[in-house]
Amino acid sequence: MTEPLNVEQTAARLREADPVLILCHKNPDGDTIGCGSALYYALTALGKTAAVLCADPVPRRLSFAKPRLFRGEFEPQLVVAVDVAGVQLFGDTGLMPAYSRRVDLCIDHHAGNNGYAQYTLLDDAAAATAELLCDVIEAMGVQLDAQMADCLYTGLATDTGCFRFANTTAKTHRAAARLIEAGARVEELNTLLFSTKTRGQIEAERMAQSHLEYALEGRCALIWLSQDEIENSHADPADLEELTALPIGIEGVKVGLTFRQQPSGSWRISIRTAKGVDAVAVARRLGGGGHLRAAGCELLGTLDNVKSAVVTEVQAVLDAPEEAVCRES
Amino acid sequence: MTEPLNVEQTAARLREADPVLILCHKNPDGDTIGCGSALYYALTALGKTAAVLCADPVPRRLSFAKPRLFRGEFEPQLVVAVDVAGVQLFGDTGLMPAYSRRVDLCIDHHAGNNGYAQYTLLDDAAAATAELLCDVIEAMGVQLDAQMADCLYTGLATDTGCFRFANTTAKTHRAAARLIEAGARVEELNTLLFSTKTRGQIEAERMAQSHLEYALEGRCALIWLSQDEIENSHADPADLEELTALPIGIEGVKVGLTFRQQPSGSWRISIRTAKGVDAVAVARRLGGGGHLRAAGCELLGTLDNVKSAVVTEVQAVLDAPEEAVCRES
Repeated sequence: MTEPLNVEQTAARLREADPVLILCHKNPDGDTIGCGSALYYALTALGKTAAVLCADPVPRRLSFAKPRLFRGEFEPQLVVAVDVAGVQLFGDTGLMPAYSRRVDLCIDHHAGNNGYAQYTLLDDAAAATAELLCDVIEAMGVQLDAQMADCLYTGLATDTGCFRFANTTAKTHRAAARLIEAGARVEELNTLLFSTKTRGQIEAERMAQSHLEYALEGRCALIWLSQDEIENSHADPADLEELTALPIGIEGVKVGLTFRQQPSGSWRISIRTAKGVDAVAVARRLGGGGHLRAAGCELLGTLDNVKSAVVTEVQAVLDAPEEAVCRES
Repeated sequence: MTEPLNVEQTAARLREADPVLILCHKNPDGDTIGCGSALYYALTALGKTAAVLCADPVPRRLSFAKPRLFRGEFEPQLVVAVDVAGVQLFGDTGLMPAYSRRVDLCIDHHAGNNGYAQYTLLDDAAAATAELLCDVIEAMGVQLDAQMADCLYTGLATDTGCFRFANTTAKTHRAAARLIEAGARVEELNTLLFSTKTRGQIEAERMAQSHLEYALEGRCALIWLSQDEIENSHADPADLEELTALPIGIEGVKVGLTFRQQPSGSWRISIRTAKGVDAVAVARRLGGGGHLRAAGCELLGTLDNVKSAVVTEVQAVLDAPEEAVCRES
């Protein structure tokens, strides 16, 4: 069992510790890298030794964050995880396993955090861990500088789709205002994070869009990419995630489906739903899982067979009102 | 010459007047309709008679805003324009000409406002007129309610591309926070305003993307749509504006061009540039005009001739450092 901490208690533990090792989750995103880097800068501003450890490389798009990366050069007095909801999310490459089993402190915003750390600061109303970390850094007595602000803004903006998703609150906007005042370069960051696609992404998008189909009287839209097309596009597989927003973003569509063929030949299906339609209900009927509005599954078979199997389950959920009614949180 | 007012003076004039006619600009966008509607609700909350007049219909996407539309049923004691930078932007259909020449008060955020009204509240640091109107409504002593908050949030979000554009400041985010606390339904509004495309838009995007070409070693990307394609897509011409973000959003592209054939057969060219490249310099060489990062022109000729004429001027600007250097504001 973990012991819950508040912002001030968390800040006090960080102020006491030196040196500090900061752990991020595998397949790192803007929030875990942004928080890891901002906390690194805050600790070094207090004259401490700190470094960041992540099982995977920092994505190129986030390479403006340049914390010191941990190479085993010190024995940490405190191991702190940022934006990591469970031990399985640390990954197990390199030095990670030696530290991910003895996490002293976890700062997170995931409701599903399973309490693996000795102490946990958890706020699942925060849109991003970065929103929470703004308060922690201020409670540490550190003045937010432009570098920290860039990193925290990145976490805030990426976890909210630039303040578009339903998790965005008044507190999220107030945190953004503080970060802009502290010098966050929002124009450059927004261009980098939200307005720029690689040529590969554009090519994959073009191919997927050419396969756009509607089903169930326009209530369902689907796109697909074969393994050959994915390879020929030269898109980074991580960049293909954005495709899943395309079919659900069409007027009148209640369920948007994206089929991506995997190197094994099987089809990975991403299910996105409009408000009031339960994506995970569709996924569970196909052996998958996920969240209320974003779920997925993986199926073997020809494209036509897989498409018709999925559309059948979408129809069953759309036409079964009691199942489609969301337990919207 | 107009007399400048501050927020309190503006609020005082609005509190004194009854009935009030509110004017929006033609081709109305989220900011002018959002502000017109919010001011209408604020004035009626004070027990006054008010109505909104616009030369063009309210776009379907903004139809959740339901102010009373002016039909000439009262003689206004005060005529107030919101988000209208010049008299020529009122349009001249219906009742508009009878009122657009005698505007008492203008509330605006456009630096180029030419002072056509007797009194003007102008703040060109505001990202949207809605940002300014939040302060005015509070200074009027009106408590922001959910309906006003929806309308003002719409102005704020549409003028900033959902807090992505360079005009977004700390004050913009603080205004968004206040509007969320007042009950703005941000999830529904963001889906409506930013995440939903019509089938026609998707079809036009698919066709334009299939024509994607690169020039000048990838520094320039261009897409085009013939008049036949535009018709066949069934897209609303206003919805095609979003296409112009596509070529400039590709990694490494400094100048993004979108060619749309007009019913007359001529080509309308939209020029979008990366930071540091002057779009209007390109447009001026081709007889057009516009802003630093978004400009345009219209040319007659075959697609191939027009493309090569435009790319030649893009190259001239990209390769002439003194011209490409921006007087970035």
